[in-house]
Amino acid sequence: MQVDSDATQHLQKAASAARDAARALAKSPESQRNAALCAMAKHLRDDAEKIFAANATDLAAFTGSNAFRDRLALNPARLDAMAKGLEDISSLPDPIARILSEWTRPNGLRIRRVAQPLGVIGIIYESRPNVGADAAGLCLKSGNAVILRGGSESYHSAQAIHAALTAGLRDTHLPEAIVQVVPSTDRAYVAAMLAAAGLIDLVIPRGGKSLVERVQQEARVPVLAHAEGLCHTYVHAAADPAMARAIVLNAKLRRTGICGATETLLIDRAIAPSLLPGIIADLRAQGCDFRADDEARVLIPDLPAATDQDFYTEWLDSILSVRVLDGVEEALAHIARYGSEHTDAIITEDAQAAEKFLAGVDSAVGLWNASTQFCDGGEFGFGAEIGIATGRVHARGPVGLEQLCTYRYVVTGTGQVRP
Amino acid sequence: MQVDSDATQHLQKAASAARDAARALAKSPESQRNAALCAMAKHLRDDAEKIFAANATDLAAFTGSNAFRDRLALNPARLDAMAKGLEDISSLPDPIARILSEWTRPNGLRIRRVAQPLGVIGIIYESRPNVGADAAGLCLKSGNAVILRGGSESYHSAQAIHAALTAGLRDTHLPEAIVQVVPSTDRAYVAAMLAAAGLIDLVIPRGGKSLVERVQQEARVPVLAHAEGLCHTYVHAAADPAMARAIVLNAKLRRTGICGATETLLIDRAIAPSLLPGIIADLRAQGCDFRADDEARVLIPDLPAATDQDFYTEWLDSILSVRVLDGVEEALAHIARYGSEHTDAIITEDAQAAEKFLAGVDSAVGLWNASTQFCDGGEFGFGAEIGIATGRVHARGPVGLEQLCTYRYVVTGTGQVRP
Repeated sequence: MQVDSDATQHLQKAASAARDAARALAKSPESQRNAALCAMAKHLRDDAEKIFAANATDLAAFTGSNAFRDRLALNPARLDAMAKGLEDISSLPDPIARILSEWTRPNGLRIRRVAQPLGVIGIIYESRPNVGADAAGLCLKSGNAVILRGGSESYHSAQAIHAALTAGLRDTHLPEAIVQVVPSTDRAYVAAMLAAAGLIDLVIPRGGKSLVERVQQEARVPVLAHAEGLCHTYVHAAADPAMARAIVLNAKLRRTGICGATETLLIDRAIAPSLLPGIIADLRAQGCDFRADDEARVLIPDLPAATDQDFYTEWLDSILSVRVLDGVEEALAHIARYGSEHTDAIITEDAQAAEKFLAGVDSAVGLWNASTQFCDGGEFGFGAEIGIATGRVHARGPVGLEQLCTYRYVVTGTGQVRP
Repeated sequence: MQVDSDATQHLQKAASAARDAARALAKSPESQRNAALCAMAKHLRDDAEKIFAANATDLAAFTGSNAFRDRLALNPARLDAMAKGLEDISSLPDPIARILSEWTRPNGLRIRRVAQPLGVIGIIYESRPNVGADAAGLCLKSGNAVILRGGSESYHSAQAIHAALTAGLRDTHLPEAIVQVVPSTDRAYVAAMLAAAGLIDLVIPRGGKSLVERVQQEARVPVLAHAEGLCHTYVHAAADPAMARAIVLNAKLRRTGICGATETLLIDRAIAPSLLPGIIADLRAQGCDFRADDEARVLIPDLPAATDQDFYTEWLDSILSVRVLDGVEEALAHIARYGSEHTDAIITEDAQAAEKFLAGVDSAVGLWNASTQFCDGGEFGFGAEIGIATGRVHARGPVGLEQLCTYRYVVTGTGQVRP
């Protein structure tokens, strides 16, 4: 790990200011937080020219791929979507101070478990400028302070967006330290964030597998993330054929670049001869390629052969790994070995088989007769998400406002002492 | 961090076996887990002579303090309490597979958030042999596999207890890998556990501040713990005097060595002249010593003077820091600066002041008109606890069976694809 005392000192000061700001924010009325979100949206729109100019500076210096350039580029529609995103967050229910449970002990003590902001959240993201505004909005709404570290290619864009967000905080009399950006593209600031145990309560990395894995390896603070979405759709022998075809097509090809896209098709031996050719034909008609095991290639000889490594591969592309197997147990064993504990689906009309699969699949999301592409905070009804978590601690699956909270206990008595 | 390839290899094998065992355990019926707990208790009682012999070996080699020796020593009453503890856990409600929430989306998808074991838990504890059995029982009941690393002074005792626990698993046809102990007192095994990201889902250190802080600093796996319980009792101007005296006496002296013991008394300027002398007299009559600020010493001149450092000190002894201040804001500011976010109480008859304190105190447990010594899983009604957490992620406060679970989503559809 890089150690840099300037970065560490800066981060400690920033995190300490963020902690104080978070304590003030946690006590703020919902109306004030919502007003701040709307004021931030207004300033994003008002600052459009400055933001586009900053973005042009970033784009002028950019030398990477066209796909990457596209993610970095801002335009009026994208800026408006960013502003609209903040306004949408303002209309979501307040996640703070919900009473999660409540009971009274025989000695009369009344115990309440109450939701509460986590505190100070660090966001480390790649060069999609909207991630900073989205994350800041979700953190603010949930009463958390946030320290943003965007990709170095988007540095000027991030600063300009931050200026607009800060103006919104100022307008609504909230501390500016609620939303901070690190002041440099130096990677030492990332190292300092990841080392800031006790100062930063949670780090959420948003980006590709290598970014997330680096964060997970280096962090001494808690991390909520997924490195991979190696999702499976398992077509069981008792699947409805038309439903299976429609779901596999959607799960693989609706969008191939998202983490909930299906990467591997598992199909039961009993139904493969009648159903697999149709599934493959549907996908092929939309330009999908395949990596298939020997048994699938007996049925459809022109499928390219899969290596074992292919089943470990998150394609994020129009490629599908295909394996023929026999029954729920074999499907679960395959998923346990090759999967990433993200999202896995079974297609079947047999409720018992579905229950067995859903009870046995050790993933953040298990689905029955639906597309894996539904693994998404919006589709779950959370209104917005800050990411998907595949770890086992704190939160699994889509991370929305509720998951950006912790809880604490409030105990009220009438003079009780412990015997 | 020490790196030791033998320890790392062993740990990887152990954790992988634990993962498989945990997957089997997660599917086991409650009755089987409860039978295993009772069988473990029986074998602990049946193996009493072997366990006492192993404990005698540990005691013969022990060269530490008498207090430490007392914690290490087993006797029939303590062994029976250990066995009884496992039987008690068997009678607690099953924490697995509870439906935590459930809703249906407009497109007909039914989403359930379901409780689930965390997976593989590592316990690092000092030389109190009962901790291993208690922790194993709580992990087993909650469907988790556990890897135990006890203090090196209790090595033989831990092995003998582990043999009894394993016999109980065997009797009830559960995999022995559910409860494992590290095979050596080498500290490299601790380092290997703390480095085992992805293999061990959570580490819980049980012991003194230095053990916990070492674990927190070194761990690359999630940690649930508290390093300190620097708890405050704040006597507000509107406190009932008799209640305040009774609560402070109990909060400080009922047991001074537990993390929920009050270490600092804060008292409002308005009530200190009439109330503080009585509080001090009650405590003095039971042998308590004091570290008091100047204002308290004006009222009671023979109190020893406090340094600033004293207010940062968790005495775990019959010593109380005392500060006179003015109002809820000042009390909250003191607690935010000197406290450990563990447990803090206000004593007052003024509901508004209490609400302000409870809303502002950023601790795992906030109490109103009750003793801080109530911060305990048993007192909260959890039946048993594996520790207290003062972090902000996953769980805060007493950690019982529910907190040893994570959740996942089970989504059932009727062929839905994402538009």
